[in-house]
Amino acid sequence: MVANKSLIFKRVHETPTVAGQDIAVESREFDLDQELSNGSILVEVLYVSFDPYMKGRMVEKPVMGPYELDQPIPNTALARILRSKNESFPTGEIVRGDFPISRYAVATAEKLQSGFAHLIQNPLNFPLDTFLAALGMPGLAAYASFYEIGKPKKGETFYVSAAAGAVGHVVGQLAKREGLRVIGSVGSDEKANFLLKELGFDAVFNYKKEKVDEGLARLAPDGIDIFYDNVGGETLDAALLRMNPYGRIIACGAISQYSRVQGPYSGYGVTNIFNITVKRVTMTGYIVSDPNIGPKYGAEHMVNLSKWIAEGSFKSKSTIVDGIDNSADGFVGMFYGQNIGKAVVKI
Amino acid sequence: MVANKSLIFKRVHETPTVAGQDIAVESREFDLDQELSNGSILVEVLYVSFDPYMKGRMVEKPVMGPYELDQPIPNTALARILRSKNESFPTGEIVRGDFPISRYAVATAEKLQSGFAHLIQNPLNFPLDTFLAALGMPGLAAYASFYEIGKPKKGETFYVSAAAGAVGHVVGQLAKREGLRVIGSVGSDEKANFLLKELGFDAVFNYKKEKVDEGLARLAPDGIDIFYDNVGGETLDAALLRMNPYGRIIACGAISQYSRVQGPYSGYGVTNIFNITVKRVTMTGYIVSDPNIGPKYGAEHMVNLSKWIAEGSFKSKSTIVDGIDNSADGFVGMFYGQNIGKAVVKI
Repeated sequence: MVANKSLIFKRVHETPTVAGQDIAVESREFDLDQELSNGSILVEVLYVSFDPYMKGRMVEKPVMGPYELDQPIPNTALARILRSKNESFPTGEIVRGDFPISRYAVATAEKLQSGFAHLIQNPLNFPLDTFLAALGMPGLAAYASFYEIGKPKKGETFYVSAAAGAVGHVVGQLAKREGLRVIGSVGSDEKANFLLKELGFDAVFNYKKEKVDEGLARLAPDGIDIFYDNVGGETLDAALLRMNPYGRIIACGAISQYSRVQGPYSGYGVTNIFNITVKRVTMTGYIVSDPNIGPKYGAEHMVNLSKWIAEGSFKSKSTIVDGIDNSADGFVGMFYGQNIGKAVVKI
Repeated sequence: MVANKSLIFKRVHETPTVAGQDIAVESREFDLDQELSNGSILVEVLYVSFDPYMKGRMVEKPVMGPYELDQPIPNTALARILRSKNESFPTGEIVRGDFPISRYAVATAEKLQSGFAHLIQNPLNFPLDTFLAALGMPGLAAYASFYEIGKPKKGETFYVSAAAGAVGHVVGQLAKREGLRVIGSVGSDEKANFLLKELGFDAVFNYKKEKVDEGLARLAPDGIDIFYDNVGGETLDAALLRMNPYGRIIACGAISQYSRVQGPYSGYGVTNIFNITVKRVTMTGYIVSDPNIGPKYGAEHMVNLSKWIAEGSFKSKSTIVDGIDNSADGFVGMFYGQNIGKAVVKI
């Protein structure tokens, strides 16, 4: 038996998550030599992704499946296979899939299948967190939804909220490559500088210093053709007012709303929605696990972004929480804007 | 000189329109023998359409063009040509186009062009109001947006709000023809009966007797695939909660919001919008004057609906306000649900 530190779901809560109370790091016993059932693997978890949507599984009426109380919280992770009874997942390989935020874990054959687990090939020796960032779920989300829903045209104006986030910084770079004028909103000057100087965004405003409506009036005086929304709430409301005819809204996330108390995702009331009618806007929801869109772009996303990252023309950015002991605080910090790029915990 | 009674726009107002105060019937002098410029026609207006969106042109910051103060309010109308200096519009013919709500009017060549005016052919001798209802703008709006945005599939569940309205009663019949399960919401039992007994809707609820959310829970327990929204506000909010994955929302109107006071169309805050993301819903705005959609379906709409109406398998319903003297009250009444089908004033 070894001590297996894990991030445990302690309490269903509508209010902002409190580390040590709603979620907490606890140590449980784990048998490294346990008998494995056929098809199972035993892994050492290396990196786990932190995603804003996870908060939505901690509330009373979750729109997505709820987390299990008093159990480790699972999410997309990279893990090294320590022991295997599954020929597709040999010992020593790195696997990406749904694993608990724990030092060690066992995945059954059934679990491996349902979590779309697969081995990671890394011939170009990218840092492993890249496979949870631009080359991972957020990168695919950005890529697939940008092309499938955004239908970008050169010269159009593109606005992305939470622009320095996991999805935002990827989609902004894609829009730049396609010749669009790229505007982002962020919550700190540090993030604004990162986007302007390192990723070549055309314009960025800090919504903590300037109202979204004012920032957009100043930076997008001719309106918005594509709005990539990761924030929802007031940001969405302000952007609706500025959409151009036939504009497209990619409704990818609503981080401003995940912690609200009036039921799931239903805090802020969006008042400018009639602009969708008047401007003949199309607003389409997207989640990366969508079986109808993701796979269509999966190979293209991986080939293109790998090439661009290797040649230095594209950046995958992560903020890494170091150590599972810091994971509860790191998760909470994500909602206070502490990460640039993808939030990842290194176990 | 003759007396030319007209419905005059008297006052910009955010609050619900008051007849005799915000709009009023007044008599102005009109010269029936006036000299006509080349390309002009002089008409006797027969029927004028009343549409909810008109309220949106009476507010302080109209999203669409504002009406001119102290002038007759224009809208789509049918008129008989009394005199003509335009070969395309001969004396005696019936023309459909933008005319003031007046007994008499002159339309210049320029006006005839910008208003998409055209002669009405009526070989099947339909009542004239049909050309402002199922065979008019609302009918085309319903037809084009239902197919273009709704992408209906047999067996799906279809929900239309303001279902007994000008657009609603047409689109509901189309959905029935395509083999969908059709649910409507209305504001009176008389309307509910009309839809159930005369148009064959599958289910209808009265939102004044049952909350929209409860009505939908009862009548659409398996969710909604296509929501055709003419109401906005709370109705939209309730429907968002019940959308099925990959559902489509046709955002055609928001009659509940046109009279609100917090700026144009921005009264009620829609709180369930994140369901668009989670359910991967597509919500698309539509206005009938859209040059990219209407014309594509114009001929098909006219041929099919004429045939179906003639053979008795499709109904065009109007409520006719009798006489221009009653037009101010008739307009206001539209917002209190007084019409079944298309609201039309017979001059």
